[in-house]
Amino acid sequence: MSDSRSGRAFVPGHVTGFFSVHEDDDPIRTGSRGAGLTLTDGVSVRVEPADERSVTIDGRRVEIAPVERVLDALSVTGRVEAESDLPIGAGFGTSGAVALGTAMAVNRAFDRHLSMNELVRLAHGAEVLSGTGLGDVVAQAHGGIPIRLEAGAPPHGFLDAVPATARIEYVTFGELATEEVLSGETETLSAAGRRALSALVEEPTLPRLMLASRRFAREAGLLTDEVRAAIEAVSEGGGEASMAMLGRTVFALGTGLTDAGYDPAVCRTHPAGATIETE
Amino acid sequence: MSDSRSGRAFVPGHVTGFFSVHEDDDPIRTGSRGAGLTLTDGVSVRVEPADERSVTIDGRRVEIAPVERVLDALSVTGRVEAESDLPIGAGFGTSGAVALGTAMAVNRAFDRHLSMNELVRLAHGAEVLSGTGLGDVVAQAHGGIPIRLEAGAPPHGFLDAVPATARIEYVTFGELATEEVLSGETETLSAAGRRALSALVEEPTLPRLMLASRRFAREAGLLTDEVRAAIEAVSEGGGEASMAMLGRTVFALGTGLTDAGYDPAVCRTHPAGATIETE
Repeated sequence: MSDSRSGRAFVPGHVTGFFSVHEDDDPIRTGSRGAGLTLTDGVSVRVEPADERSVTIDGRRVEIAPVERVLDALSVTGRVEAESDLPIGAGFGTSGAVALGTAMAVNRAFDRHLSMNELVRLAHGAEVLSGTGLGDVVAQAHGGIPIRLEAGAPPHGFLDAVPATARIEYVTFGELATEEVLSGETETLSAAGRRALSALVEEPTLPRLMLASRRFAREAGLLTDEVRAAIEAVSEGGGEASMAMLGRTVFALGTGLTDAGYDPAVCRTHPAGATIETE
Repeated sequence: MSDSRSGRAFVPGHVTGFFSVHEDDDPIRTGSRGAGLTLTDGVSVRVEPADERSVTIDGRRVEIAPVERVLDALSVTGRVEAESDLPIGAGFGTSGAVALGTAMAVNRAFDRHLSMNELVRLAHGAEVLSGTGLGDVVAQAHGGIPIRLEAGAPPHGFLDAVPATARIEYVTFGELATEEVLSGETETLSAAGRRALSALVEEPTLPRLMLASRRFAREAGLLTDEVRAAIEAVSEGGGEASMAMLGRTVFALGTGLTDAGYDPAVCRTHPAGATIETE
């Protein structure tokens, strides 16, 4: 339908509430189990052919390992322009979003004829090999409030979802290096993630997701002081909040953070997965 | 988030381009393979507790077998009010949409704590046992332009998708009884459906989906005269159209039907699957 040779895709943000790590020799089978929320705040990626490869986010030149891998795999020389509603490196899955959005936009701009599952496999594999994420891409391709029951990209990964929608607020205090946490000892974290998943599967509701996420953040030892303080302030006001994995970010249902005196960004859970946009 | 004890869900319409029938003793494993488009025109379903069971579409009292089965399975006495953008029985998957929307809205109104996959299993099984559909529910839960690679509800069914979006036009000439076609001899139809799926998997694009669908409609012997004439008129104008399975309905990409002189309804492919709505 587009007359110019370009492509554009929107990929929702994704905050993970809890997860466990699942390693495999095959990057497509590697990933995480867990659950989180996809967000109407996300990343829009536009790709067009160019003589030289370039990747920008909000106009700033960047180098994002999984995006470079996607472009390498598709043998593409192009200009990738991403616009993000979300801070980078703060637990919103922006690296996965740019990688998946790039794969989808390239597929359209360069007529590559790949299916959605093939694009998800590509972006997921690029994230895993780069050590930047384990479950954001499959969650972002799904949309809604995904529960990742089996790790990995299609056909291995298997998802369910919490059938709900909500207004979401969030505040960010800064970055947390995903690579550092994921390359360290993850057994304690994964054991806590498996317990959280069992609790959510038993009752797949939004309040249970928040409760399981808070317990996970505590048990995994990832809470920083300002994150802990914000979560407690929301709880004291009768609200529901937890920490975005992996970032120094707190997300809350409804008006939880506002009620607690914070000045949060506001969005909603996103009903759809990543989608091609018309230009 | 809702203060009243009610629930509301929106389920997109779904036109199937081609399919093959897959029978099993287990209704959850029974279903169809194939592909189609989910539509922004769909069905909104509201459920609230009541002393007596009632189901209405656009205010008219109806009895829809799969909806009755869903209410029976959930042991619910309630008022089900559906509003449909789409004609009933014309190939838009409205029976599946009302069944899935009812399951989702009941889950919310009556705090049943079922997951999305469990709701899809319930509505899919109800459709299969009623003989009213084989693949609409799983497609409508997925959204976008779903390719049903393996038949049945989760965890058996397996979907891929065409990563695209489009303006869609449609005209309807009347009903075609799904039950009659599905209860008849389906081997010729299924063989044509399997060929169409192979062709689409080879090149998962929207033009290929339309081409494979047209060939299927011809080979399966389901074309009626007015449907054939509309598809040919769109083709002569350089457009892409096919027949909605199973209904006397023609759907076209872009402005295909308008260009051919018809006065079609207009919508778009729907980016999301069925979603809970806030009230």
